[in-house]
Amino acid sequence: MLDELTVVLFRPKYPENIGSAARACLNMGVSRLVVVDPYNFNMEKALPLATAHARHILETARIVDTLAEAVEGCTAVFGTTARTGGWRKGIMSPETLAGVVDERLRGGGRVAIVFGPEDKGLTNEETSICSGLMTIPTSREGTSLNLAQAVVVVLYECFKRSLAGPFVPDGPPEERAATIPEQEALFANLQQSLLAIDFLKDDNPDYWMLPVRRFFSKVNLKRNEFNLLMGVCRQVQWFVERYGPKK
Amino acid sequence: MLDELTVVLFRPKYPENIGSAARACLNMGVSRLVVVDPYNFNMEKALPLATAHARHILETARIVDTLAEAVEGCTAVFGTTARTGGWRKGIMSPETLAGVVDERLRGGGRVAIVFGPEDKGLTNEETSICSGLMTIPTSREGTSLNLAQAVVVVLYECFKRSLAGPFVPDGPPEERAATIPEQEALFANLQQSLLAIDFLKDDNPDYWMLPVRRFFSKVNLKRNEFNLLMGVCRQVQWFVERYGPKK
Repeated sequence: MLDELTVVLFRPKYPENIGSAARACLNMGVSRLVVVDPYNFNMEKALPLATAHARHILETARIVDTLAEAVEGCTAVFGTTARTGGWRKGIMSPETLAGVVDERLRGGGRVAIVFGPEDKGLTNEETSICSGLMTIPTSREGTSLNLAQAVVVVLYECFKRSLAGPFVPDGPPEERAATIPEQEALFANLQQSLLAIDFLKDDNPDYWMLPVRRFFSKVNLKRNEFNLLMGVCRQVQWFVERYGPKK
Repeated sequence: MLDELTVVLFRPKYPENIGSAARACLNMGVSRLVVVDPYNFNMEKALPLATAHARHILETARIVDTLAEAVEGCTAVFGTTARTGGWRKGIMSPETLAGVVDERLRGGGRVAIVFGPEDKGLTNEETSICSGLMTIPTSREGTSLNLAQAVVVVLYECFKRSLAGPFVPDGPPEERAATIPEQEALFANLQQSLLAIDFLKDDNPDYWMLPVRRFFSKVNLKRNEFNLLMGVCRQVQWFVERYGPKK
């Protein structure tokens, strides 16, 4: 889905971040990684962070000298920035970027997202090649994200968006919700049980049932939970009948 | 906004990940970090990853022995998992979790999000204390995220959500939520009551309590509802003692 999306790391300083970014790419379904003019690149330091699973992404990453080479063949380039002042207007959120990227990819485009150096980010010169800029929302106290963390957040938004339907975790299907008649049957049964053990008083049980009803109506009660509670009620009533005082 | 949100790292293996997680906390406006029983904790290794900006978060992080201590005082605990099969039903996406967390926090609750060890994640034992589970969508080729990367993605969703305007329904102030110790006391009391009426069997009551726990952990149980349920349990036990068969 994100086959035609390329992650470009521009002059990264720490090989470990390149490894971590490769792992983030794998997690989020991106396989194209390009590194521009890295500082002291060292595969030995990068590989452990990529883990064995993302090793192939790191090993097939293109290493080039210039940003222009990195984005060759792309139809759109987006830059990431932590600086949002001055002329850097119309900066997108990661969510908005993900929508734009998704549209471009579905339209047959090839998209690159560029991340700047850890310390300085992208300069105006580099952003001038970009079709748009994106910034990740942060607290005012800590505006600078780790490079690979920025990569994972942006790719997470793109991956989420690329999933056609809403994201549905694997697992057995959910139980169906209890119907209104089932819920009413349960309330009647609960009331009878609570009367049987003298928790509710005979004079106005409906009134005392109000908080009980309110409690259960908050819950999106499932069929299996309905069965469970009906079973408890039956057992209470059986118990009272068998052992309770004769009325 | 996320002042009452606590990030809990359960038995992390690498100090570097603790440092990175502290930085992610700072970026996303979270200042409460708790580390449970870390493996070979080493401040020297953790600090550079936290950077100077997040140093205070790392230095004031509570280090405790058990998960129970870590979540003491919280009203809801959510676990993160990469395993979504078996009985692990109704697992939320990070987005859905962010919505739930936001609601709980705005209601005056104190919420913890627990992240398991890098290699194994949380076991069923640890997730049993959780009110809900969350998983991050990933490609099938790389389902395992770096610990601190998982932290930043989840907190990013929570932070994003916290920036949105508050939805405040009219009405009287909400009851406070039941605390985790209260919830545990209720489970113990429920179990005793269900044993007393022979609904649960003596041989493996913990196992039979699982669906009961699951049911109640779905609900954002309020203090008055807790009192109501404790009262029902007391009455059941009183009734059994008074009228039940002598054992």
